[in-house]
Amino acid sequence: MPARLIDGKAIAERIQTETASEIARLKAEHNLTPGLAVILVGENPASVAYVSSKDKMCTRLGMHSLRLNLPASTTEGELLAKINDLNFDRTIHGILVQAPLPPHISEDVIFAGVDPTKDVDCFHPLNIGKLALGDDSGFFPCTPAGIQQLLIRSGVPIEGRHVVVLGRSRIVGRPVSLILSQKAKNANATVTVCHSRSANLAEICRSADILVAAIGVAHFVKAEMVREGAVVIDVGINRVEDKTAAKGYRLVGDVDFEPVSLKAGLITPVPGGVGPMTIAMLMHNTVRAAKLRHGIE
Amino acid sequence: MPARLIDGKAIAERIQTETASEIARLKAEHNLTPGLAVILVGENPASVAYVSSKDKMCTRLGMHSLRLNLPASTTEGELLAKINDLNFDRTIHGILVQAPLPPHISEDVIFAGVDPTKDVDCFHPLNIGKLALGDDSGFFPCTPAGIQQLLIRSGVPIEGRHVVVLGRSRIVGRPVSLILSQKAKNANATVTVCHSRSANLAEICRSADILVAAIGVAHFVKAEMVREGAVVIDVGINRVEDKTAAKGYRLVGDVDFEPVSLKAGLITPVPGGVGPMTIAMLMHNTVRAAKLRHGIE
Repeated sequence: MPARLIDGKAIAERIQTETASEIARLKAEHNLTPGLAVILVGENPASVAYVSSKDKMCTRLGMHSLRLNLPASTTEGELLAKINDLNFDRTIHGILVQAPLPPHISEDVIFAGVDPTKDVDCFHPLNIGKLALGDDSGFFPCTPAGIQQLLIRSGVPIEGRHVVVLGRSRIVGRPVSLILSQKAKNANATVTVCHSRSANLAEICRSADILVAAIGVAHFVKAEMVREGAVVIDVGINRVEDKTAAKGYRLVGDVDFEPVSLKAGLITPVPGGVGPMTIAMLMHNTVRAAKLRHGIE
Repeated sequence: MPARLIDGKAIAERIQTETASEIARLKAEHNLTPGLAVILVGENPASVAYVSSKDKMCTRLGMHSLRLNLPASTTEGELLAKINDLNFDRTIHGILVQAPLPPHISEDVIFAGVDPTKDVDCFHPLNIGKLALGDDSGFFPCTPAGIQQLLIRSGVPIEGRHVVVLGRSRIVGRPVSLILSQKAKNANATVTVCHSRSANLAEICRSADILVAAIGVAHFVKAEMVREGAVVIDVGINRVEDKTAAKGYRLVGDVDFEPVSLKAGLITPVPGGVGPMTIAMLMHNTVRAAKLRHGIE
């Protein structure tokens, strides 16, 4: 029996609706409009597209949105100065610096320059540290938090189950392993972190109740790596050549979708699975930042 | 064939000797004496003993040692003020606040009050965050770093091997899983974090090449949970009643030592395994803090 699809688009849409009504409540009851600043350095086409969609989503949900487009020649010091202005700007509750940054700017320096209480992307080491220590006063990174929401809202039990995470990136693999293994509701999983240097990778993946593929290699997860009935979350977005497509390529995940979907119990498609969740959680985090700032429950 | 013992006492002693000669070099070449401040609040007998042994070790290695004994009635604010003095004290490179603290003081607040560059115990969320993100500019927590050293200095290959960590405490389980799964030399393991809520615990433990028991339950790990020839690291220190002992109890680990040692390839005893490593790594971290502060390679 082919797997049931996890509809990330529909779940993200439900979260956006919840966020919009929370924003309406904050405006009505507290005269508070959550504000998100997004900084784009240079003109990377993918980044321009991401930033525009964030911008539009803010407007759609009734959030204040500030967009800073800086030239690719911006120095690290100039960028830090802009961030610092936003750290002290009372109309801004969340700050996002769009990655990747030009090579002359250190991402470590920039991410550590954002006020941790406005770090809605959870790139500051302080917030990752809080996550690792089970301190829930910080933020959860957007894509990993989105994966947890996909599981919860699809009725997948997490507690006590074996989650195998393929990949240990700072944006997805590492934080999703921390979130799902936390001592907390909708977590408490047994989590294995695998990567390119892992021995017996196929065997380990087959032991997963929930397999999260975030390794950045097209079609890496084959059917023989998946246990019958497992839940498969595909975080990959890879371009593969496709002469029949208008752009000459198409986007595929880290999972070899067709054969794996015949074996899995539940699976996310690419696109339309994890992708739409990232922006939904960014909006959610910004509202949370505004509420924390003003001590609103 | 019974397991070979990992002699933590001997390995810790070798690290102490290395640290002592590094301190001698810093004094001779840089006129720099690394300094460690240890703060004890109250008179918990175990804590008094720990603090005294740290104090003595500083003296033995030629390190500057400052010990603050504060009454159990000390307020959170008073303790923070003392820590802040030490944050600005140029003769002090490492600050350790002995846990547990009295219940009226928040450990989260106190640990976050230590200057992260003097946080040689690695209890500040910023340093745990750096560890989680693969940023090596911070510190590694002492016991987990000691476990890694035990493995390295016993010739145990870590890269690509399957490490199962039983327990996810902020002091041992969580950070040791981060250290051993890092993208780095003497790491790169596949790491599974298990805990009291994990399903199929015995089966998961049996899949370990290296099993780290840090669950805080005497004799929790039985022979049937260990694969023939596996490396077993026992972090537990539990008191069990023993009428034949002078104190009426004896200390045992989380591993059912006798039967497991007949199956394991290598095993740490309790005491004399992981225990002596913690203080060795504390001294090592303090010297590292002094060198970082003064830009010395």
